[in-house]
Amino acid sequence: MTHQDRGAADGTPRLLRSGALQLETGGRLPEVSLAFRTWGRLNPDGSNAVLVLHALTGDAQVADGPEGAHGWWRGLVGPGRVIDTERYFVLAPAALGGCSGTTGPASAAPDGQAWGSRFPFITLRDMAALEARLLDLLGLASWHTVIGGSMGGARALEWAATQPERVRHCVVIASCAASTAEQIAWAQAQTAAIRLDPAFRGGDYYRHDDAPRVGLGIARRLAHLSYRAEPELESRFGRAPQGAETPLGSPDRQRRGRYAVESYLDHQAEKLVGRFDANAYLSLTEALMSHDVGRGRGGVDAALGQLDAVEFFVAAVDSDRLYLPGQSEALAAALPGKPGVEYIHSSMGHDGFLTQAEQLEPQLRARVFG
Amino acid sequence: MTHQDRGAADGTPRLLRSGALQLETGGRLPEVSLAFRTWGRLNPDGSNAVLVLHALTGDAQVADGPEGAHGWWRGLVGPGRVIDTERYFVLAPAALGGCSGTTGPASAAPDGQAWGSRFPFITLRDMAALEARLLDLLGLASWHTVIGGSMGGARALEWAATQPERVRHCVVIASCAASTAEQIAWAQAQTAAIRLDPAFRGGDYYRHDDAPRVGLGIARRLAHLSYRAEPELESRFGRAPQGAETPLGSPDRQRRGRYAVESYLDHQAEKLVGRFDANAYLSLTEALMSHDVGRGRGGVDAALGQLDAVEFFVAAVDSDRLYLPGQSEALAAALPGKPGVEYIHSSMGHDGFLTQAEQLEPQLRARVFG
Repeated sequence: MTHQDRGAADGTPRLLRSGALQLETGGRLPEVSLAFRTWGRLNPDGSNAVLVLHALTGDAQVADGPEGAHGWWRGLVGPGRVIDTERYFVLAPAALGGCSGTTGPASAAPDGQAWGSRFPFITLRDMAALEARLLDLLGLASWHTVIGGSMGGARALEWAATQPERVRHCVVIASCAASTAEQIAWAQAQTAAIRLDPAFRGGDYYRHDDAPRVGLGIARRLAHLSYRAEPELESRFGRAPQGAETPLGSPDRQRRGRYAVESYLDHQAEKLVGRFDANAYLSLTEALMSHDVGRGRGGVDAALGQLDAVEFFVAAVDSDRLYLPGQSEALAAALPGKPGVEYIHSSMGHDGFLTQAEQLEPQLRARVFG
Repeated sequence: MTHQDRGAADGTPRLLRSGALQLETGGRLPEVSLAFRTWGRLNPDGSNAVLVLHALTGDAQVADGPEGAHGWWRGLVGPGRVIDTERYFVLAPAALGGCSGTTGPASAAPDGQAWGSRFPFITLRDMAALEARLLDLLGLASWHTVIGGSMGGARALEWAATQPERVRHCVVIASCAASTAEQIAWAQAQTAAIRLDPAFRGGDYYRHDDAPRVGLGIARRLAHLSYRAEPELESRFGRAPQGAETPLGSPDRQRRGRYAVESYLDHQAEKLVGRFDANAYLSLTEALMSHDVGRGRGGVDAALGQLDAVEFFVAAVDSDRLYLPGQSEALAAALPGKPGVEYIHSSMGHDGFLTQAEQLEPQLRARVFG
């Protein structure tokens, strides 16, 4: 990446070919590519680099792109936003193990075939280790800020715990210090649905015409429900039928019509299936199940208590039922200086971290991006 | 059923062969059997008959049985309990469409083969219509009480709405007037997992060696999670591994070990799969999705507002996240006389209606079983 590159063509996809990566659990990827996008310019003293980390099925398109693409966090990142791309140099990498350009299960292994079932187990620490190569590439000592929500928040926290000397501010939104029994349980059901799909073929489906679309769609239904809240579903759909369909069932119950909420979830499932790889979903989901910032560090409190050098900002969505506000409170209470929790007020549940993140603008401006 | 029968052998399984049943949605079952159990004796004026209705995967074993079997509601029903089988004559039928003795998808159709995919769509009203034949059999004008929790509560409410002149008290615990968008959504994911299982074979799997065990197991995982609450899971399991298993994953992620909560849910799934038929699960789940006491009656308020002749008792579990306490409050507010809501205080979530129902004993004794 040259200096000229850094300011040109905001949001253009880039690829860092990065050699081998040794993994936390003992595996090794012999050749890793890291896809990312950037916005803004690195300033002369290199003090304005912000790393933005996406959630489970997110990608590097955090802000609006050159071809009119909308960024998934455009409320926070862009010209004039709190993460002002006129002032900050924003980098957004695609996660290791995913399917948005960075090496993942659908990538080619050394034998030229897709990794598939052979893709190794990935953790959030492996993602951070790979992303650290972006700092090296830029010749920077540290990020101004590492920020993310949901799994992105967990990734940001792991960044701070793994390399605290390279993170000045860490912003953790709608996330937690360690995935809980409940989060693991919902995730397990999702992975089981994918693996049940006969088209999954043990993970080696790439050479076949079909893919585990139904299984991945069920996983997405469950995930989507956990991302939203009951009152919104009730007010939007209630018991309404989908169009002229007859959900009550005809005498032939095999041809039962759908309720509107079923059609809505079918649509959410189809959208995800159209843009996401089932093995990548498994890889990232199991990485998130493994999330525990205290692993190998004497537990969560010990791991967090020593991070004095990092300024933390913790936020939650008040209606979140996947990452409960209490988990953010516990995280903040275990951090040096007990920074407290800022709140997004939303009826939407967890997804409020995406759709209503701009509520945090005053606090983020006061404490991080001043 | 003779008078002598009525008091003999509490909990003995019985079967009523009941002829044809016309169904609400237009189907017809040419020959229906109704399995039930009874406890206690019908008194001379026939005023002490209590109908107890089970939940989705429940059965007729509501109280302790003759061979040492434990009843699923033994905290409420039995000698000396609030539904005192020394004073009340208790009948517990197995639901139509299930797999506990009453006609369901695994039963033989007229051609001698299992109904399988041909089993018609069933509603809670069909269940009540069939159960009314027990009243006829006993020569009774009305039940002293119809009582149930969860789907059993919905069934009790439908009983009161369908035949209010035959129900003196109606007890609805941890249930609602109409299944909500959220309840429908969770149910849809469960049915999709069953149908995805290659062993499901469109519902006609009875003649094969395998059954959709994995799909039914996923459904049960989801259901079980909705029946419990997050704090209990966290305090019981946290992030503990299962025994010596390594959930973090070896380099070969296909052989990842399990977290303890995964093993727990595997166990819950296996238990259900060992005792329940997948088609029955679908039939009952879709019946519950169809639950709407206002259907064809001008809506919930109109349907409930005219039930002056029935004494209602409504209760909820304070930590229930499947049947939200607000739904019980809304139900009670729509009933004549606005009876209010009694609460089971529990950290367990929905399943508190089973495990801690005896908390309702004083209120039930004061208002229903005095």
